[in-house]
Amino acid sequence: MSRTEEEIIKEEEAGKQKLLDLLLHAGSETLEEQLEDIHPADILELVHSEEETDPKQLLERLPDPIIADIIDEEDEDEKYELLKLFPEERQKAILEKMSSDELADMVGSMEDKSELTKLIGKLSDEDRSEVSQLLSYPPDTAGGIMATEFINIYDNKTVYKTLLYLQEIAEEVENSYALYVVDRQNHLKGSLSLTDIVTSPFDTPILDIMNSHVRKAHVEDDQEKVSREFEKYGLVELPVVNDDDQLVGVITVDDILEVATEEATEDIHYMGGLSGEEEVDGPLADSLRSRLPWLVVNLLTAFLASWVVGLFESTISQVVALSAIMSIVTGMGGNAGTQSMTIIVRGIALGEVNRENGLRIFIKEFLVGLLTGAAIGGIVAIVEYVLHGNVYLGLVTGLAMILNMMAATVTGYLVPVALKKMKIDPALASAVFVTTVTDVLGFFFFLGLATLFLPKLI
Amino acid sequence: MSRTEEEIIKEEEAGKQKLLDLLLHAGSETLEEQLEDIHPADILELVHSEEETDPKQLLERLPDPIIADIIDEEDEDEKYELLKLFPEERQKAILEKMSSDELADMVGSMEDKSELTKLIGKLSDEDRSEVSQLLSYPPDTAGGIMATEFINIYDNKTVYKTLLYLQEIAEEVENSYALYVVDRQNHLKGSLSLTDIVTSPFDTPILDIMNSHVRKAHVEDDQEKVSREFEKYGLVELPVVNDDDQLVGVITVDDILEVATEEATEDIHYMGGLSGEEEVDGPLADSLRSRLPWLVVNLLTAFLASWVVGLFESTISQVVALSAIMSIVTGMGGNAGTQSMTIIVRGIALGEVNRENGLRIFIKEFLVGLLTGAAIGGIVAIVEYVLHGNVYLGLVTGLAMILNMMAATVTGYLVPVALKKMKIDPALASAVFVTTVTDVLGFFFFLGLATLFLPKLI
Repeated sequence: MSRTEEEIIKEEEAGKQKLLDLLLHAGSETLEEQLEDIHPADILELVHSEEETDPKQLLERLPDPIIADIIDEEDEDEKYELLKLFPEERQKAILEKMSSDELADMVGSMEDKSELTKLIGKLSDEDRSEVSQLLSYPPDTAGGIMATEFINIYDNKTVYKTLLYLQEIAEEVENSYALYVVDRQNHLKGSLSLTDIVTSPFDTPILDIMNSHVRKAHVEDDQEKVSREFEKYGLVELPVVNDDDQLVGVITVDDILEVATEEATEDIHYMGGLSGEEEVDGPLADSLRSRLPWLVVNLLTAFLASWVVGLFESTISQVVALSAIMSIVTGMGGNAGTQSMTIIVRGIALGEVNRENGLRIFIKEFLVGLLTGAAIGGIVAIVEYVLHGNVYLGLVTGLAMILNMMAATVTGYLVPVALKKMKIDPALASAVFVTTVTDVLGFFFFLGLATLFLPKLI
Repeated sequence: MSRTEEEIIKEEEAGKQKLLDLLLHAGSETLEEQLEDIHPADILELVHSEEETDPKQLLERLPDPIIADIIDEEDEDEKYELLKLFPEERQKAILEKMSSDELADMVGSMEDKSELTKLIGKLSDEDRSEVSQLLSYPPDTAGGIMATEFINIYDNKTVYKTLLYLQEIAEEVENSYALYVVDRQNHLKGSLSLTDIVTSPFDTPILDIMNSHVRKAHVEDDQEKVSREFEKYGLVELPVVNDDDQLVGVITVDDILEVATEEATEDIHYMGGLSGEEEVDGPLADSLRSRLPWLVVNLLTAFLASWVVGLFESTISQVVALSAIMSIVTGMGGNAGTQSMTIIVRGIALGEVNRENGLRIFIKEFLVGLLTGAAIGGIVAIVEYVLHGNVYLGLVTGLAMILNMMAATVTGYLVPVALKKMKIDPALASAVFVTTVTDVLGFFFFLGLATLFLPKLI
């Protein structure tokens, strides 16, 4: 019963229609009952896709906590648009239900100072101070992605007492997978997973089952480091502490999954020559802003390569066939360089290139350049010899190819490693350096050798 | 107190040394006590990094469940190497403690049939049938990544009774975040998170708090689809059902985090022209196998482009300056095409390109090509006019640039979309098509126009 794509799409459409009917027409009792099983992400999707329906109409009958959840799901820079659908008093009630990290994201992404001031005025004193604290951390650090909602307990309880306490504060426990044991000064002393709680006999003292060597992040830790920690240890939640080892927030795995996808997208975009944050279905102006700067940089390197060719115009004018062959040498060098660069840049991003294996990897890349250069150079040499009946033309092409492919793989290793050392994101700038080297050197090797052997080529 | 990189490395080294001392020299009581706070991933890291220490010596004093956890953490194709360190009887005991999905990965990755037969002989009957079932699903589907360990309960219990039950089966609850309610035929009827359990009063019937609209995956669902589901709904665990809606496994978020990273790495490698699974610090032979095939394919397209240039040799021989300029036109086309292709391929991978927005995105890419082509073409036209003092040469270059960049962005959209339609991974093959088009058309536009205007260029 493997379903076809058609069937899946049909099923999804039917589900959407059902949800739409429910939101617009169901009696308030039915609505409340059914809402328990509906994820806010689905309602948000409906708000986005139903162009003929007023979002306000879709949302206004929903209870405040659900609206808050829906806004939580929305992209940073669209959150406020949703909130603004409601009258002022209701906005305050909804804000009260939002989590601190999402509030901080919303405030942090607002550019209109007047709107921003209005919004901040609607926050409770507690939220306002939390948001201000969260915004003081750079967005790509543990502090920037953590939430300040978590459950802490003192260590003098039993499992039974803890369960009673959790039942009491039920509403706050949503989305928590662990409890944190702190002392009176809020220093992190230990942690317990919910699994620990549900599997231990009721009379077990918390002290006996808590893990006192808590894995934790520091507020200033880079989000990529935190993300790797989640992956390495299979975490679902990680507490965040400040300089004084006080518990200040937690990061949950759903945030990390987003971080992992975002970082991968950023690297892929950078390596493809897109700067800035461009969305596939975003406005034209964003695309131009993201692409033109790199095109201009690439143009400069293209002029450089063109200038090298210009140096050899007299050689080319004597053996015009060179002009058709030379782009093979530079093109293949570009491909080989891109391959090396790709594997090194990704390896660096995943933390797989380090002091210990750096030299070994370098030597491997060198050998890859030599061997693939010999293979590809050999083929090209034979083909050009056959096509033009001149063995020297074959030799010049083959030799230039080997040299350029070796330069390519070595550059593909050295450039990202050097950029990393200089604390520049290797994904961002490696490509342009690598292709510059392979173009400039490719033309130089090929046309230079051709000039040396010119008498034999004519 | 932001720590420097030096300090962090030092700290990590000290931690490693401490762990090494513990594993090699601590008394068995101390060892047992301390092990609770040590993650198997850290022990595995030590096994990998300590070249002077025998891995057997490091591991043999550890209890079986910990060894099983360490093997769980190891890469698929290295798992068996670790297991083999132990005598036969101990191997059986360790295998008994391993999770079914990891067992299946180990069995699935073994190529030596004789070793494989030996290993299968050591599995319990239950494990053997589970592994065989799991291996029947393709590795990139829900069935291929799920585990068969999960907790199911009948719906006639209260929260209190459930807690007593969980305490009883404590050992099996490890790494579970939800309970599943099934009927006698194992049909999935509902789910409860551990949060539901710990926050509900003891006398609450399970029926009252279970979610009966369970979000679930089908065994044949693609892992990328499952991964997007986790991200969209912020899941930590997802049950997997078969055609009869029977619960057959669960997927946890730590597997998904791995999937997300793997898929991103695969896409990045594919787009960089690496086929197969190449590791940055892997053997030279793997690198050659991964790179040479694409280099050969690229070589064929390079010959094609070179042939196009050859068609215009007589034009080039009359205006040699063309040979220096033509690579600017193809190079910039290649860059623009790569940009478009990158944003489209990533958009497709994230499910952001669909029927509704396809045309809009296509038009945008067309306009990006037109506008960036006009900008870059304009600059190049002026520069070449100034360099060579011939206004027609500037015009030919500028016009060819605009045409090629429009062709580039349109191809950058069309190729990945077409490949997706043909169920070929767009990341894998888009690049070579796009650069072929931009090279061939780039040379054709530029040299063709130059031939048309030849009398004005001489």
